[in-house]
Amino acid sequence: MSQSINIGIIGAGRIGKIHAENIAYFMPNAKLVAIADLNMTPAIETWARNLGVAKVLKDPSALIADKDIGAVLICSSTDTHADFVVKAAQAGKHIFCEKPVDLTVAKVRAALAAVKKANVKLQVGFNRRFDHNFKRVRELVESGAVGAPQIVKITSRDPAPPPASYVAVSGGIFLDMMIHDFDMARYQAGSDVVEVYATGAVLVDKAIGEAGDVDTALVSLRFANGALGVIDNSRKAVYGYDQRVEVFGSKGSASAENDTPSTVRLSTESGVVGDKPLYFFLERYKEAFISEMRAFLEAVAEGKPCPVTGEDGLQDLLVGLAATKSLAEGRPVKISEIS
Amino acid sequence: MSQSINIGIIGAGRIGKIHAENIAYFMPNAKLVAIADLNMTPAIETWARNLGVAKVLKDPSALIADKDIGAVLICSSTDTHADFVVKAAQAGKHIFCEKPVDLTVAKVRAALAAVKKANVKLQVGFNRRFDHNFKRVRELVESGAVGAPQIVKITSRDPAPPPASYVAVSGGIFLDMMIHDFDMARYQAGSDVVEVYATGAVLVDKAIGEAGDVDTALVSLRFANGALGVIDNSRKAVYGYDQRVEVFGSKGSASAENDTPSTVRLSTESGVVGDKPLYFFLERYKEAFISEMRAFLEAVAEGKPCPVTGEDGLQDLLVGLAATKSLAEGRPVKISEIS
Amino acid sequence: MSQSINIGIIGAGRIGKIHAENIAYFMPNAKLVAIADLNMTPAIETWARNLGVAKVLKDPSALIADKDIGAVLICSSTDTHADFVVKAAQAGKHIFCEKPVDLTVAKVRAALAAVKKANVKLQVGFNRRFDHNFKRVRELVESGAVGAPQIVKITSRDPAPPPASYVAVSGGIFLDMMIHDFDMARYQAGSDVVEVYATGAVLVDKAIGEAGDVDTALVSLRFANGALGVIDNSRKAVYGYDQRVEVFGSKGSASAENDTPSTVRLSTESGVVGDKPLYFFLERYKEAFISEMRAFLEAVAEGKPCPVTGEDGLQDLLVGLAATKSLAEGRPVKISEIS
Amino acid sequence: MSQSINIGIIGAGRIGKIHAENIAYFMPNAKLVAIADLNMTPAIETWARNLGVAKVLKDPSALIADKDIGAVLICSSTDTHADFVVKAAQAGKHIFCEKPVDLTVAKVRAALAAVKKANVKLQVGFNRRFDHNFKRVRELVESGAVGAPQIVKITSRDPAPPPASYVAVSGGIFLDMMIHDFDMARYQAGSDVVEVYATGAVLVDKAIGEAGDVDTALVSLRFANGALGVIDNSRKAVYGYDQRVEVFGSKGSASAENDTPSTVRLSTESGVVGDKPLYFFLERYKEAFISEMRAFLEAVAEGKPCPVTGEDGLQDLLVGLAATKSLAEGRPVKISEIS
Repeated sequence: MSQSINIGIIGAGRIGKIHAENIAYFMPNAKLVAIADLNMTPAIETWARNLGVAKVLKDPSALIADKDIGAVLICSSTDTHADFVVKAAQAGKHIFCEKPVDLTVAKVRAALAAVKKANVKLQVGFNRRFDHNFKRVRELVESGAVGAPQIVKITSRDPAPPPASYVAVSGGIFLDMMIHDFDMARYQAGSDVVEVYATGAVLVDKAIGEAGDVDTALVSLRFANGALGVIDNSRKAVYGYDQRVEVFGSKGSASAENDTPSTVRLSTESGVVGDKPLYFFLERYKEAFISEMRAFLEAVAEGKPCPVTGEDGLQDLLVGLAATKSLAEGRPVKISEIS
Repeated sequence: MSQSINIGIIGAGRIGKIHAENIAYFMPNAKLVAIADLNMTPAIETWARNLGVAKVLKDPSALIADKDIGAVLICSSTDTHADFVVKAAQAGKHIFCEKPVDLTVAKVRAALAAVKKANVKLQVGFNRRFDHNFKRVRELVESGAVGAPQIVKITSRDPAPPPASYVAVSGGIFLDMMIHDFDMARYQAGSDVVEVYATGAVLVDKAIGEAGDVDTALVSLRFANGALGVIDNSRKAVYGYDQRVEVFGSKGSASAENDTPSTVRLSTESGVVGDKPLYFFLERYKEAFISEMRAFLEAVAEGKPCPVTGEDGLQDLLVGLAATKSLAEGRPVKISEIS
Repeated sequence: MSQSINIGIIGAGRIGKIHAENIAYFMPNAKLVAIADLNMTPAIETWARNLGVAKVLKDPSALIADKDIGAVLICSSTDTHADFVVKAAQAGKHIFCEKPVDLTVAKVRAALAAVKKANVKLQVGFNRRFDHNFKRVRELVESGAVGAPQIVKITSRDPAPPPASYVAVSGGIFLDMMIHDFDMARYQAGSDVVEVYATGAVLVDKAIGEAGDVDTALVSLRFANGALGVIDNSRKAVYGYDQRVEVFGSKGSASAENDTPSTVRLSTESGVVGDKPLYFFLERYKEAFISEMRAFLEAVAEGKPCPVTGEDGLQDLLVGLAATKSLAEGRPVKISEIS
Repeated sequence: MSQSINIGIIGAGRIGKIHAENIAYFMPNAKLVAIADLNMTPAIETWARNLGVAKVLKDPSALIADKDIGAVLICSSTDTHADFVVKAAQAGKHIFCEKPVDLTVAKVRAALAAVKKANVKLQVGFNRRFDHNFKRVRELVESGAVGAPQIVKITSRDPAPPPASYVAVSGGIFLDMMIHDFDMARYQAGSDVVEVYATGAVLVDKAIGEAGDVDTALVSLRFANGALGVIDNSRKAVYGYDQRVEVFGSKGSASAENDTPSTVRLSTESGVVGDKPLYFFLERYKEAFISEMRAFLEAVAEGKPCPVTGEDGLQDLLVGLAATKSLAEGRPVKISEIS
């Protein structure tokens, strides 16, 4: 990257802050010039000023309109993503949009159309593709080391459930949580999903059930290339964030275990004890967030395709909607049934 | 075990020989007195004589009728199991029967009825329950260390596919191969299966597809206690026999990795290389076959219940039949649909 | 092995019994025909009769004189080994002798001379060479996979100390315990030891110090081929028998970890817990004892060299004596100083 | 840390640059205001300017004299360390000095005296104490989880040897390379070393031998608290940087394995392959360099003792000199012999 690019961020919540700090500290060829948040507070403003951000705004439209800005990061609430994508595209900005672009297919399609028309870059924030472990698995798969993929297995469990109030507006476990795993499954299989069967249960927190969702889910996948897949999710793994992937193929398997704070083992009369997995996504995917942003900036700077496209976001959404339908109807659902 | 018991074995194929040798070498309180095989050969006879077996017969009925014999091991071909169970029960013998008892529910039920009426012991040969790793997982689950089971995951892959000719008469992957895993799933969950959804594909050997079966399969389970489960099978894992189990629950997870010939790792410029899993069931379950027979003899000697009952065999068959139906009809199937 | 060989065992203590049972159960081409023990008891006699041993004797000389016997296993107390080796050799028997042959160089040399003169086989009972892990390390070293050996590291710790009364007559930690590791070091390095430096401390049990020994020891080795080595011993590892080996060379390293009862890991809020190592040598080296006896019988039957020779036993003793001297004198000692 | 501190760095070589960048990027409460290098180049100046360093100097004395600067980092060549420590202390600056302070005891003592007189902080750059793995081992030892330390084992091998020209002026393997491990050994044992026995060999590169040094070394340690220790060093581990520690004690052991780029394992017909260790110290100790600097700044800001003191540096040097002497004279050397 030889040229520098000016960045504006919409939304200064947890994920917006992560990207802001990563750009400020680690991306010498990008300059974070503006941050906008509809709920701008003095605390956010102070934080932004300390980061050296010149323009701290309440109005995202002003940020989008800013001629100095070359790329916009959309980190606001999900329901605003698609609109901002359209506006940013129309303003000629390259776009990094947090996942999901939207929970409805129509709005995602409209956003993608706007991006296409404006001929700008769009990268969707499926950060796990940039995790060192999962990337390594994918490299091995792509290199042919495991042969043709036959079974993709993903374990993805959170350390603690969100409040039921969050669950109620989240879109459900398949669109809120497992959508990351649908993306991972497609990434690892190197193929789109064509059919889904979802089962689920309320085993962690009754309130999640009362909010109309499940907290434990298991989804079978069939990929276009003939491979099978399975994902299990739990909202609560007491031992920490459990994020594992296995790709089994005609020549072998590649599997990624969890990361741990240390490699230390304590051997005593009671057994041999090692560390639990890193606690949650901030710890586990710390480096992945940096890599994903680097990849976006590189795609922009070098005019290369983004590594996670709007089409990826759309496909992941379709799988999530199919899983939701499958659970509701108690039957396998083809992706082609969703539109 | 203070008293000795006289044993007769019907069927001197691979598995019959394993049990015969294990009894001869490792079970001081049991005496192998007779072996019958419908296809008795001079080679089998020599082998049996060398083991010190006094009666080497062609006719299983003669063995069953033998007053000296207290327990019969049925190791003949699957289609003969149920009949021999009935006859042995009627003759008042305790029975160890290789899995499955039969591929039809009616014949299994008839066999179990005969066993009940005769008030003899019946143990079915699901040897994997006696594997040191899987037993340890179950102990942890039973002890409450993982809390209430929520997700049971089983990986079960063979090192090499059987010939398609075998596949054609095998009853299909769910009754021939995955039935072991259905039993393991029920054992680990501590609960029966109530619903099954099966997907499958022909990814290993086209001839298996032409024989009307799949060689790669993924089955979702729902247990009576509310837990979910998933099993994946492949007829061909090039790195060897892949037999892993994980039980995830409210207080944690217990997981069993494969056994390897050694713990040695070689670190070179190319990476850090460890052993592949033990090659196949003879290696992996060598000790488990001994433990299962010890458990049977102990149950007989001490009048205790067998650790794998005829009812277990029936339930496993029902799950297998449901999975077969699920794959054929492309929909989830309730166990209650099978009868 | 096509011919059968008749075996006599001198000494029916713990190790004699292990060999007796292994031969009876697992060595179809050897027949255990006689057992002699100077302290023969009714209990030993019953045990021997149950194993099918025809001649149960008090007098080892009678056993050695027995014309029916082709090979003698010397499992009596250490102070009797050398004499029995000489007598058995003079009687033309092949000999398996438990380690060490003797604690004095002169008696070992005399025993080896008798063996040479009689042209019989002599294998010394360094069973760890037959351990699946250590054998695998050696195979990798021999294959050239680690290149030229540069550093050999051995960890060898017992789960619990012997009584001080035993320690007092044991010959000291270097001749009683570490001698196994000296043999392992020479085996793995593929080279004899030329110099030794020993340090030690009494950290486990004061009574061991009062008996004139140490319970914790660390020995540096220099091999004839230029490689360096280090061995650490402790009489008490509370987590079980710790038996590890690492060979580091110009092309990499091969290292063996402990064996465990299972591969199961329990993940909870407190950490990820795995099994402790197998408790002690009976568990860890169960298979190694069988393999070592098979190797001896094979060497006898096929007229091949024994895999652990009398010369090995002598070299190991020299290293042990040098280490003892080094600790006493606080300086490195050359093997050539010992005679 | 509430107050900010102004930092000056002397020496803009590899390690100086690491500290400079870490302060610039990760230490919000420290400001890097000056860099001095006797061999200042335009490239260094550009790099410094890009980091936002205001004063880029050729003369370290000017930096030391600068009233704006509160703490000085000494990252120049070893032979200049002690003088700069004295001058910086006399100027009232807190000091972070790369290891070793000097290769002669007298100069180190003089430097420590100056530091004491000036009542400033001095931290020596033994960065490995801040490694997440080794720190975790130490925490477990300190917590009493392994009981009283009895054996400390350290493996420390570089991926590739330095040029013989470097070796010739390095002070030898014990002062150049193993000094880190002496510090680690003292840190883990929680005790000073009282006696050392060193062996060594030239097995990697003849030119190193011709330069008067060894490239493979093994050192036995005896600690003041009675524990024993052993360190092995190689200048060339072809599989990468091998940095492991084990502390064995009365209640168990704590051991740290290497870090790897990923947790991924590839299982194929050839075996199960995992990643090699991280390549070298820049990768392995990346976070440790940051933690060590944070600890220094915190000690300065909060008036707390530095976690690695000048006395530590002196003790490590004494052990290094004793090891050097031991190798030269072929005998164990007491630390008290060195002065």
